Amino acid sequence: MAAIITLTTDFGLKGPFVGVLKGAILARLPVAQIVDLTHDIPVHWPIEAGFWLSRSYRYFPAGTVHVAIVDPGVGTDRSIIAGEHDGHFFLGPDNGLLPPVLGTTPARCYRLSETWRQQQGWPSPSHTFHGRDIFAPLAAELAAGRLAISDIGPPAGELIPSLQEEPQAGPHEIRGTVIAIDNFGNLITNIDAALLAGFRKPEVLAAGHRLDLRKTYGNVPPGEFLALINSFGVLEIARAEGSAAESLGLGRGAPVIVLNATR
Amino acid sequence: MAAIITLTTDFGLKGPFVGVLKGAILARLPVAQIVDLTHDIPVHWPIEAGFWLSRSYRYFPAGTVHVAIVDPGVGTDRSIIAGEHDGHFFLGPDNGLLPPVLGTTPARCYRLSETWRQQQGWPSPSHTFHGRDIFAPLAAELAAGRLAISDIGPPAGELIPSLQEEPQAGPHEIRGTVIAIDNFGNLITNIDAALLAGFRKPEVLAAGHRLDLRKTYGNVPPGEFLALINSFGVLEIARAEGSAAESLGLGRGAPVIVLNATR
Amino acid sequence: MAAIITLTTDFGLKGPFVGVLKGAILARLPVAQIVDLTHDIPVHWPIEAGFWLSRSYRYFPAGTVHVAIVDPGVGTDRSIIAGEHDGHFFLGPDNGLLPPVLGTTPARCYRLSETWRQQQGWPSPSHTFHGRDIFAPLAAELAAGRLAISDIGPPAGELIPSLQEEPQAGPHEIRGTVIAIDNFGNLITNIDAALLAGFRKPEVLAAGHRLDLRKTYGNVPPGEFLALINSFGVLEIARAEGSAAESLGLGRGAPVIVLNATR
Repeated sequence: MAAIITLTTDFGLKGPFVGVLKGAILARLPVAQIVDLTHDIPVHWPIEAGFWLSRSYRYFPAGTVHVAIVDPGVGTDRSIIAGEHDGHFFLGPDNGLLPPVLGTTPARCYRLSETWRQQQGWPSPSHTFHGRDIFAPLAAELAAGRLAISDIGPPAGELIPSLQEEPQAGPHEIRGTVIAIDNFGNLITNIDAALLAGFRKPEVLAAGHRLDLRKTYGNVPPGEFLALINSFGVLEIARAEGSAAESLGLGRGAPVIVLNATR
Repeated sequence: MAAIITLTTDFGLKGPFVGVLKGAILARLPVAQIVDLTHDIPVHWPIEAGFWLSRSYRYFPAGTVHVAIVDPGVGTDRSIIAGEHDGHFFLGPDNGLLPPVLGTTPARCYRLSETWRQQQGWPSPSHTFHGRDIFAPLAAELAAGRLAISDIGPPAGELIPSLQEEPQAGPHEIRGTVIAIDNFGNLITNIDAALLAGFRKPEVLAAGHRLDLRKTYGNVPPGEFLALINSFGVLEIARAEGSAAESLGLGRGAPVIVLNATR
Repeated sequence: MAAIITLTTDFGLKGPFVGVLKGAILARLPVAQIVDLTHDIPVHWPIEAGFWLSRSYRYFPAGTVHVAIVDPGVGTDRSIIAGEHDGHFFLGPDNGLLPPVLGTTPARCYRLSETWRQQQGWPSPSHTFHGRDIFAPLAAELAAGRLAISDIGPPAGELIPSLQEEPQAGPHEIRGTVIAIDNFGNLITNIDAALLAGFRKPEVLAAGHRLDLRKTYGNVPPGEFLALINSFGVLEIARAEGSAAESLGLGRGAPVIVLNATR
């Protein structure tokens, strides 16, 4: 059996935090196949973690345990949840991170019970590194098949919603937001391809530019701006062999509008 | 059997791109041993990817599958090639990246056939992330031993050559270029040690400095510049306990000359 | 048997150095479970490597081989040591890196014999990358159980001490130093929680601020400074939902004082 665990955090790669989290998993499950989804989530920004997780999990095998820790409330009374969706398992704090994957009223989702945790005989957790002290043993036991998510506590009920606003979508216009920027300076928006389904000729407005929708970066000459539906199924603004983020001066939260040019 | 796959890209570690590429490999081969060679290749700069790959592959066990993706032409009609060299397997776009390893007319090299790919029943590829949609399944199937490189299409024929100029080498003078900079600010050139074989007393010229060839950094006092043949067999310019790149103001492409002082 | 190997270096992630080190391990032990502790140790700064290693190793399973390479003296006559402590194995250069884990006169510690190394039939080492050429084969053979640390040479005797000063601790005052900064800008000091055991009401002085000791970041309003005992058992100065390092302008080496407010 493959026991695959993914990690999504805002820990960065300075210091031993990610390494120690892996050590705590391996101490319980030495054969775990641990994959970094990313540790470069902007600090204390669960929105981007939830976005990427919701768009990425399906490329891993069913049964994968996805651990997401962007957790400014660590050590306070915020709770920890474990949910199942589409054959995958998800662990995270209840702070809006997981609803992009699970929704706010997930069918199969449980809330970690403090009583249950204490009964496990795990070492007493620190106040500031629940990744190592709570998420790691939970993930290892789930991935090992020695634990079911329903073992950890009561049904989660309603989750704290994501802070990310949904795009405003009408028949002739969609208003969305830049939600992430990749290593190439491509601006990735929260506008799902499905919203554009009825648009005969979408025209994208960003930072004063009007852009046509293309298939890929190489479809325009170097230096030209373009819009495309990217490989994660959302609208993206790019510059061929350049950085749209730098050239347009846009960052997370910047508004992007799609018009239906021929209505 | 160990199924080892290395990854060399310009994806960086922002966002889930590398993680998702690994997920797509593990979905087909959950026991794969995946190693990041580097994801910090300068964006759209296949030259450095090819250089490092050609100097690094031999430290992995024979049979390793090396995947290299620096691919500004993704989604256009550029083709994908799979080659074998020295008992190792290599996958990359046909854009000059692999010739530093394979040469431009490799004996065992095949070009991915679009027809063959469609017959595999893999999900339809996106236009912008062939790493996940084409390279990952190819690498997994090759590493699993369920595929031979000759299965994927016709012999590749001639490859697009690398954009990297070769050093100009004569009996008394070699002219080369800085090709990469490491974390210590050492300037790594494309001048192979073999070119210096006939030089009785090589003298290295860079940014107005004349440097003698030493064995290692600790052979000169802190702060002093030196030249050496590095652990990958090429000429390197360094500053003991300092950064040659910062101190000399040199970067990729900077000229470096070796003179034979006692001709 | 799980063969776990951790890596702690100042190599960064530019270029293939970490990847090639892993390749050299896998060439001898293809099933090794290799974990990056961190590669972002400040260049040539063994102090931070030793600090993190001493605080991190225990979260890995007993038997783990921890390789630490911050090694400005590579290729000179500095020696390489292998020690055992608390059921874990440690490999590093003799330059002050390992004493924070092993002490300066460790009971079970051996010094690599050049004669023994030459007898192994390993490829001749380069002068500048002993990580790949010496540490990797040593780590792989130890992790595989084909080698004992006492095989590699004579007892190490006295190690070169760490350059890190110990905190000055008295009954009413402790004077320590910032030793590392994490991704959140938290300032991590060398003041162990045990030193504060007798303090009834510790008050922390840093950059003109007087800070009370709290349990976790969420215990104060956003923007407020706080001190806490962190998850690695040392005093830390933080800013809730902000960066203490940036706001206070403090870095490595900055002085931190703890007073016993109610003596």
